[in-house]
Amino acid sequence: MLELRLVQGSLLKKVLEAIKDLVNDANFDCSSTGFSLQAMDSSHVALVALLLRSEGFEHYRCDRNISMGMNLNNMSKMLKCSGNDDIITIKADDGSDTVTFMFESPTQDKISDFEMKLMDIDSEHLGIPEAEYHAIVRMPSAEFAKICKDLASIGDTVVISVTKEGVKFSTRGDIGTANIVVRQNTTVDKPEEATIIEMNEPVSLTFALRYMNSFTKATPLSNTVTISLSSELPVVVEYKIAEMGYIRFYLAPKIEEDEDETKPQA
Amino acid sequence: MLELRLVQGSLLKKVLEAIKDLVNDANFDCSSTGFSLQAMDSSHVALVALLLRSEGFEHYRCDRNISMGMNLNNMSKMLKCSGNDDIITIKADDGSDTVTFMFESPTQDKISDFEMKLMDIDSEHLGIPEAEYHAIVRMPSAEFAKICKDLASIGDTVVISVTKEGVKFSTRGDIGTANIVVRQNTTVDKPEEATIIEMNEPVSLTFALRYMNSFTKATPLSNTVTISLSSELPVVVEYKIAEMGYIRFYLAPKIEEDEDETKPQA
Amino acid sequence: MLELRLVQGSLLKKVLEAIKDLVNDANFDCSSTGFSLQAMDSSHVALVALLLRSEGFEHYRCDRNISMGMNLNNMSKMLKCSGNDDIITIKADDGSDTVTFMFESPTQDKISDFEMKLMDIDSEHLGIPEAEYHAIVRMPSAEFAKICKDLASIGDTVVISVTKEGVKFSTRGDIGTANIVVRQNTTVDKPEEATIIEMNEPVSLTFALRYMNSFTKATPLSNTVTISLSSELPVVVEYKIAEMGYIRFYLAPKIEEDEDETKPQA
Repeated sequence: MLELRLVQGSLLKKVLEAIKDLVNDANFDCSSTGFSLQAMDSSHVALVALLLRSEGFEHYRCDRNISMGMNLNNMSKMLKCSGNDDIITIKADDGSDTVTFMFESPTQDKISDFEMKLMDIDSEHLGIPEAEYHAIVRMPSAEFAKICKDLASIGDTVVISVTKEGVKFSTRGDIGTANIVVRQNTTVDKPEEATIIEMNEPVSLTFALRYMNSFTKATPLSNTVTISLSSELPVVVEYKIAEMGYIRFYLAPKIEEDEDETKPQA
Repeated sequence: MLELRLVQGSLLKKVLEAIKDLVNDANFDCSSTGFSLQAMDSSHVALVALLLRSEGFEHYRCDRNISMGMNLNNMSKMLKCSGNDDIITIKADDGSDTVTFMFESPTQDKISDFEMKLMDIDSEHLGIPEAEYHAIVRMPSAEFAKICKDLASIGDTVVISVTKEGVKFSTRGDIGTANIVVRQNTTVDKPEEATIIEMNEPVSLTFALRYMNSFTKATPLSNTVTISLSSELPVVVEYKIAEMGYIRFYLAPKIEEDEDETKPQA
Repeated sequence: MLELRLVQGSLLKKVLEAIKDLVNDANFDCSSTGFSLQAMDSSHVALVALLLRSEGFEHYRCDRNISMGMNLNNMSKMLKCSGNDDIITIKADDGSDTVTFMFESPTQDKISDFEMKLMDIDSEHLGIPEAEYHAIVRMPSAEFAKICKDLASIGDTVVISVTKEGVKFSTRGDIGTANIVVRQNTTVDKPEEATIIEMNEPVSLTFALRYMNSFTKATPLSNTVTISLSSELPVVVEYKIAEMGYIRFYLAPKIEEDEDETKPQA
C-alpha cells in the first residue's frame, strides 16, 4: 500500500507543469526513500529526473517498491483541480490499476478524490554517474527564463560561454545577433539574487533553445537554477525543490558543425 | 414611456454577461413592479428567469407594461461601453422600435447614448409554480463555479448527491473519476463563506456540466449560490442580486439511463 | 559615429509598440538635434511623425546626419528583450549596415547587445507646415482610447464634433447608434484628468475608427492626448513624450459622401 501526504500540495502541481510538456507518459517510482521519476522527452533528446524525498512528506508509507505508469497530461488535469493551499495525498492499493489523488482544503470543508487509471510503460532506468563539470553557474531562475525566452525570439540555438567574470548567452538569427552577459555577483541583498560562477576551465557550448525554454517551465519551483557545463557531458539544468529534492534536466550539446553556424561573432 | 435609472450600472453589465451565452434573443418585460426576463436557452433545455425589482432603481417610470425584444449579444456590446462606475438609464418611448441606454460617468463629464433596434420575438411566458424541494444547498458561488469547471475537465455530467453531512459532486470520464464532497459548515468568519444544507430527504441527480458551467457565468453577481434539488423537478440554481432580485437557472435532470453510465462508483 | 544613451529605456519600447502595427519599415533620422521618424502607414492613409530631442538623452553623440532603415517589427522584437528598468543605448558605426541596441540592467550585472541589420528604404520627407486649427481638444489619453475602442464595437467610422461645451464622438452600425459626449472640465484634482477645448469655430469631421484605434496604441506614452481638428486639414492626434518630444498621427477626414452614410441622427 502506498500513501504519501504532502502538505504543500501546490508543489506537486508545479512539478507536473514543469514536465508535462516535455514528457507524455512516465513511470513514477516509489520506494522507502522517496517518490521519483526519470524519463526521456518524446523526441528522445532530453532527460528529466525528479526526486521528492520521503522526509519531505508529512506522512509517507510505501510498503514495497512500486512503479506507476501515468499519463502526465491527465495527471496534470486532475492536480489542477486542487486548490493552491490544499493538502494532496497520493494513494494506491497493492496490485491496483488506479491511483487516487486526494485533495483536502485547509479548513477540511472540501475533500476531493480523483482516481486515475495507471498505464503499462516500458522504460529503462539510466544510471547517471556523479560527474565533474568544467563550470557551474547558479543564477536567479527568472532571469535564466527571461534570457532563454528573449533569445528564442531571435534565433534557434544558444551558445553558453563561461569565464571567471561571467556567463554569456548568444544567438544568431535572420534578423541579427544577440549577446547577453550576466556577471558574477555575490554582493546582493537576497541570496537568491546572486549569480555565482564556479569554474575549473572556460567552456563554450551550443544548445537548442526549444529545450532550454521547456526546462524553464520549472521556474515556479525555485528562485534559483544551477547550470552545470562540461564539454564532454550533457548540460544539467537543476531546480531544487525546497527541503524535498530536485528536478534535473539533461541535454546534450549540439556538435561543432552546428555550433559554427550559430555562433555569433565575438 | 419607460425610464429606469440604475445607479449601480455595472449590475446590468454583469446580468448580460451571465445570460448572453445561454440566450441569443429575448423579451425584457417591464411593468410597474420591475424589469424581468424569462427565456429558454437556444437548445431549449435550460430556462433563465431574471428579476430586477422596481425598488432597486433610483428612478423607475413605466407607464404601461411593455415587452422589448433584444438581441442579448448586441445589448452586451453596448453595455460593455459603459464605465464600471457609470449610472445606466434604460429609456424607451411608447411605440418606439428602439431602446436607449444612457451612461453617465460619476463626475457627469461623460454622457453616452446608445440606441439599439428592438426585435419582435415570439415567446410564451411559463408559469413557474413555487415548489417544495428535497434539498436546498447554499454555498459560496466561487466554489460552486470551481467545482463545475474542475469536473468538466474530467467528464460531461455531474451527479449531485445531498445528505445531511454534505453535498457530493461526482463525474466520470475517459481518464478516471472524480468525487468532491463539500461539508455543511456554518461556523465561518464571513456569512457568505458558509455552506448550509436544508434537507428533507436525500437526493441524487445527474446534470449536464455544460449547462452548469454556463450558469456559473453569473458568479460575479453574488457571493453565494443556492441550488434547489428535487427528483421530480428541474434543479434551480439561483444567484441573488443584492436588494433587487435574482437570476434563476432551471435545468431538468438527466434520466436514469444516463445517470447509471456516468455515476461514479461509491 | 552614433551613440544615444536613454536612461528611461522603456520609453523606446513604448514608442515601438505605438507605431509597429501601423508602419512596417521606416527610416529613423538622426541629427544633432534629435532622433526622429516620419512614415506613412502601409496603406498610405495615415502619417506618423516621431521626435525624440537630443536633450532628452543622457548621452547624445551624432557626428553626422544619418538615416537608418529599420524593420519595426524586428526592432520591436529586440527591444522587448530589454528589462523595463534598463538603460538603452543605440549605437552605429559610420558606414555600417547594422545598428546595435545595448541594454544595461540598473545594477549593471546584465549587459545585452542586440545587433540588427539595416535596410535601404526609399522615402520622401514631407514638410508639415504649422497650421491653424478650428478646434483643439486635450483630454485624458485613456478616455480617448476607451471611446475609440467602444465605438468600434458598434460602427466603422467616428464623427468628431466640437462645440464650446464639449466634444461629441458618434457612430452608427448595424445594431444601432452611439453618441458619447465629453464635456469641457478644467476643475479636476490632477491636471492630466482635465478636458480642455480651444475652439475658433465648430467643426464636425468623420474618420475611420480603424486608424484612430491604431493611434491609441501610443496611450502608454502619455496621460493626455491632443486632437487638433480643421475642416481643411488632416486631424492631428498627438501624444507628448515627457521632456523629449512627441508622436503625432495625421489622418485625412472622410469625404462628405461617407459622412452622410455614417452620421448618426442628431
